[in-house]
Amino acid sequence: MDIQLGEGSVRLPAPVYILQTASVVGKKEGEGPIGDCFDMVCTDDKFGAASWEQAESEMQKEALTLALGKAGWEADRLRYIFAGDLLGQTIATSFGVMDFLRPLFGVYGACSTAGEALSLAAMIVAAGYADCAATVTSSHFAGAERQFRFPIEYASQRPLSSTWTVTGSGAYLLGASRYCAGEDEPEAKREQTKSHCRITEVTTGKIVDLGIRDALNMGAAMAPAAADLICTHLRDLGRTQEDYDAVITGDLGSVGKTILLDLCRELGCPIDRIHEDCGMTIYDPDEQHTCAGGSGCGCSAVTMASYFLPRIEAGKWKRVLFVPTGALLSPVSFNEGQNVPGIAHGVVIEYEE
Amino acid sequence: MDIQLGEGSVRLPAPVYILQTASVVGKKEGEGPIGDCFDMVCTDDKFGAASWEQAESEMQKEALTLALGKAGWEADRLRYIFAGDLLGQTIATSFGVMDFLRPLFGVYGACSTAGEALSLAAMIVAAGYADCAATVTSSHFAGAERQFRFPIEYASQRPLSSTWTVTGSGAYLLGASRYCAGEDEPEAKREQTKSHCRITEVTTGKIVDLGIRDALNMGAAMAPAAADLICTHLRDLGRTQEDYDAVITGDLGSVGKTILLDLCRELGCPIDRIHEDCGMTIYDPDEQHTCAGGSGCGCSAVTMASYFLPRIEAGKWKRVLFVPTGALLSPVSFNEGQNVPGIAHGVVIEYEE
Repeated sequence: MDIQLGEGSVRLPAPVYILQTASVVGKKEGEGPIGDCFDMVCTDDKFGAASWEQAESEMQKEALTLALGKAGWEADRLRYIFAGDLLGQTIATSFGVMDFLRPLFGVYGACSTAGEALSLAAMIVAAGYADCAATVTSSHFAGAERQFRFPIEYASQRPLSSTWTVTGSGAYLLGASRYCAGEDEPEAKREQTKSHCRITEVTTGKIVDLGIRDALNMGAAMAPAAADLICTHLRDLGRTQEDYDAVITGDLGSVGKTILLDLCRELGCPIDRIHEDCGMTIYDPDEQHTCAGGSGCGCSAVTMASYFLPRIEAGKWKRVLFVPTGALLSPVSFNEGQNVPGIAHGVVIEYEE
Repeated sequence: MDIQLGEGSVRLPAPVYILQTASVVGKKEGEGPIGDCFDMVCTDDKFGAASWEQAESEMQKEALTLALGKAGWEADRLRYIFAGDLLGQTIATSFGVMDFLRPLFGVYGACSTAGEALSLAAMIVAAGYADCAATVTSSHFAGAERQFRFPIEYASQRPLSSTWTVTGSGAYLLGASRYCAGEDEPEAKREQTKSHCRITEVTTGKIVDLGIRDALNMGAAMAPAAADLICTHLRDLGRTQEDYDAVITGDLGSVGKTILLDLCRELGCPIDRIHEDCGMTIYDPDEQHTCAGGSGCGCSAVTMASYFLPRIEAGKWKRVLFVPTGALLSPVSFNEGQNVPGIAHGVVIEYEE
């Protein structure tokens, strides 16, 4: 079997399953259209912590603790954690996953981090380096505003192209076995813990810069990278949109979605029939005043885990391409007037009977 | 052959070689005791760019371009780039590696990033996901001061425990084949491009927090993580210091070195006879006023590439454990009075005849 496919894809040489997930979100996300799907909605966006940044760490802790609890695992079952967030020096991650005392690979791909973490974790498990691994990613509205924009108290007006950073953290447990329960457990119990979500292929994104400079239009900044990734993926695998039930981008929002569909059509790989976007799913833009949609590392992580993945688990969808998208900017690069390039990471998740 | 070893180590299932490296540094590093070893010393620490952050991106570009040039490779030979830096949102990396148009995994492990990138790249190549991959990491004194400390113009006094962020970027080319030259080249030419540096094992670090809060004593913050990694490694592999020619930490400096040696002795894994530290190698502390030594993602990357690796390549050293070390802090965590935990990543490099 060929492992390397085309320009940027790999077919995993051994099975890897998504065994459990957990999603922890803030108040606003809980009030949105998919609010009932999340594992935990906290009405206090500070999660009992002293600062927004520490609140984000608390969310990561909760998400991974919950996922481990649902799987019936102790943390030492995890050989590696792959984790990241949007803050400078990914500081929410350092304090978020520290107490689990597991070997850590810190990753950064802006809002595509959930895809990057899943890509690497799946590749590492499939290669036999680990039997189980976890991914944890997060974002926090107030922490992101402090990091990237203006003090919330200024009540700055938001352009319609802007997105709203999701307060949330998603954790995923990946394993080489289909069962959460160990081989020493009774067969009937093992069967109950069987996963139907298998990661089969990974496509890794390049940085794409079409010259966007508006940090309040991240959909436009990320859409070219998403289009590049999706078209590379379809070419590498020799597939079209007919072979998928959905292509789910991370946080392009309504502005980015239009650009993405146009670009994919122009590149000869239309995905109009099957495109979904986590950022357009998590909020009701009219009721919740979120402009173009949700964004942040947490957006794709919690929406996929709680809303889209159950459709695959139930067998309604047979094959999905999950494409978290990231805008590569920092307060410094923005203030210095640099462009906002984009990146995307793609993971194929299939239903297995 | 067992791939997973002990608590946190893996033995690579297939050979991976360091085929080429390149190191680009600033003026001060060029004036230090190993200044003659670097591939490029720029007397303009802005590298012709408009800001310190953009200068760091220029260094990354130069380092990878140089490494590719030395190997006689085009960028498209690389299936993946693993890259990172210290700045918020690893922004030097985004603009540093963008133009190579290769699939990118962004990584963050503070000053241990060079070790994390080498670990993942080696694991990915050994698993057959790539025939060739590159790692690129960097740091810049002035960019780091702006990010983490005070404006340089304040001329703040530096305590003796503080370290001096290295202005430098190191690039490494890894491959599954021992030869830079392809199979279609004449045998004699291939032989000239043969690597003798093979990566054999990887040990991945946990975050260790012993309660240090002094961001100007990063050696003390990182030493416990380095000790944990080194002792875990030696236990996992069933080895002692007798089995190594050197254990080379990233940037503990003179304060961190003392703590490391004490801790390793207490943990029953002494390394006194064979310990080296890149941070204590790159500067002359008396002549160059660098207090405890050099630090930053660039420190271990350029010192290993230019000073220590040639000893392995020449067969003087047969086996080395390379342990870049990182202090996990951000301007926000520091201002909020949080601890400074540490992390380390270990890679074994062996001479192969």
